[in-house]
Amino acid sequence: VAGAHRPGEFALIERYFRPLADNADAFGLTDDAAAYRQRPGDDLVLTTDTVAAGIHFFADDPAEAIARKALRVNLSDLASKGATPYGYLLALALPENWTERWLSRFAAALAADQKTYGVTLIGGDTTKAADGLSITITAIGRVPKGEMVLRAGAEPGDAIFVSGTIGDAALGLRIRQGRLKLARGGKALVNRYLNPQPRVSLAPAVLRHASAAMDVSDGLVGDLGHICDVSGVGAEIQAAAVPLSTQVAAALRAEPKLLGAVLNGGDDYEILATVPERLADAYVAEAANAGVAVTRIGMILLEKGPPVVRDAKGNAIRIIGSHSHF
Amino acid sequence: VAGAHRPGEFALIERYFRPLADNADAFGLTDDAAAYRQRPGDDLVLTTDTVAAGIHFFADDPAEAIARKALRVNLSDLASKGATPYGYLLALALPENWTERWLSRFAAALAADQKTYGVTLIGGDTTKAADGLSITITAIGRVPKGEMVLRAGAEPGDAIFVSGTIGDAALGLRIRQGRLKLARGGKALVNRYLNPQPRVSLAPAVLRHASAAMDVSDGLVGDLGHICDVSGVGAEIQAAAVPLSTQVAAALRAEPKLLGAVLNGGDDYEILATVPERLADAYVAEAANAGVAVTRIGMILLEKGPPVVRDAKGNAIRIIGSHSHF
Repeated sequence: VAGAHRPGEFALIERYFRPLADNADAFGLTDDAAAYRQRPGDDLVLTTDTVAAGIHFFADDPAEAIARKALRVNLSDLASKGATPYGYLLALALPENWTERWLSRFAAALAADQKTYGVTLIGGDTTKAADGLSITITAIGRVPKGEMVLRAGAEPGDAIFVSGTIGDAALGLRIRQGRLKLARGGKALVNRYLNPQPRVSLAPAVLRHASAAMDVSDGLVGDLGHICDVSGVGAEIQAAAVPLSTQVAAALRAEPKLLGAVLNGGDDYEILATVPERLADAYVAEAANAGVAVTRIGMILLEKGPPVVRDAKGNAIRIIGSHSHF
Repeated sequence: VAGAHRPGEFALIERYFRPLADNADAFGLTDDAAAYRQRPGDDLVLTTDTVAAGIHFFADDPAEAIARKALRVNLSDLASKGATPYGYLLALALPENWTERWLSRFAAALAADQKTYGVTLIGGDTTKAADGLSITITAIGRVPKGEMVLRAGAEPGDAIFVSGTIGDAALGLRIRQGRLKLARGGKALVNRYLNPQPRVSLAPAVLRHASAAMDVSDGLVGDLGHICDVSGVGAEIQAAAVPLSTQVAAALRAEPKLLGAVLNGGDDYEILATVPERLADAYVAEAANAGVAVTRIGMILLEKGPPVVRDAKGNAIRIIGSHSHF
């Protein structure tokens, strides 16, 4: 266990985090701040998200999974804005019982993700946590000037697309909690919960085609509601059109009551985008080129209000099971 | 007490934080990210710091003091880099027992500081804390291209300056903890601990004159050691030259053993700067124009190593009482 020969904050930064700061703007983490050298023609996209033990992950989740979740939920936000990742600041609050072994695994997972997603650490802060581990990452990306894709901007008649599959992480969380058992495929769903896959490669397609977009973190229906709210529109989606993994589809057949958890359980980190009809085919094609399947699930409506979910007969379904941080 | 009729995350953001986001880049906090519209000729300075209950403040400190500390420790970092504040992202992890009353006081204190320091909220995240309150702020400032003042850059012969007075907050913390009692003036020192005063107005003088700078958060001697380390130099300071408040001077006369706590106790949030000799008078004058007293306390030396602190007779003093987050 830890405690005996732990290095202090500075030795710790040097050993584990300085190698991640492979960027002149970071000054090798030797300074109080990073300096971002601006590129003409770009806007900077800034987003911050905290993940905490007992809230967003389990304290005994693998160090690698915690690192990935902390970084990827932020990369997912950037992708949904059409932004290309540039760098991130890491504020790490470590509980008393941290070990160097844990930290080295945490840093190694960040290093691997940096390569995968083309991002580098540019600054941060390490501190003692009063209680559980907590990680706040501020991620920075770039978009062409004035072109960040907003939540506001959805127009009546726009097609509604979502990437990947929905509900995997929500059911994975239930399995992780012991609240749900599946005959098969449970492990894959738990993996989706533990290791979100940010759709970084989809960002250029979102930038070029979407009238509005966000990532699905709090639940598909609720998040679509945010787009409707700030865009001043309504929306209709077909439940049967929502893309499901084979595992989730099987779980739903066995237990139809899981529909609420699937459609509004959250933690999907897929990209929800509204796309003008004339660009819809091009969006699908460009997404496919980027290696991401996107599926049309409904349409933006003129009449303001929360999204309506319809079953195969066209009847409105009430979706219970909204996700909230509170 | 809280719990009964608390609004959810979105209502909460709208009510208390949206009014703080008085900046087009923030999209009224309705989006997943902020977009910073670059100004040609500027670099962006980015810094992040977490403050947590039980570590950096007491959970029963006034909401206003907690808000100020969270923001000001970051503004202090920006000032020490010569940067003009622009905006900040707020990641707020609230414990179960938060109240709207607490939150409204917290937000009101941020609003007041925004006016004082010319900064606006541009984004953030609110989440449930597993245990105690924790706040991570990422602050963003501007400097002319390539001119951020680094820790690296101190040259032999440079004069070492520090702003304001040193040791107030360290003794204030001891008083707050009940470990120290003063005949008089204790309240003022506790106030310095609770409400750091970032030297934002000093930033232009630092930018124009300092060869290296940082803010004193972990203790004067230790922080000067960081400048020496990354600059590849040594330093010598005169203990008697270190500027002290009347309260700290009186406390030291009564108890000389407090010298270590004063010189290396931390939480000063003053600006430590090295200034080439030919610019020293101009630095003092420009700082005075900005309403900040700066005091020369020593000199940068050629020989690498940790700073040497000398008493009035020129003898080296060993400073015990270093501050560390770990």
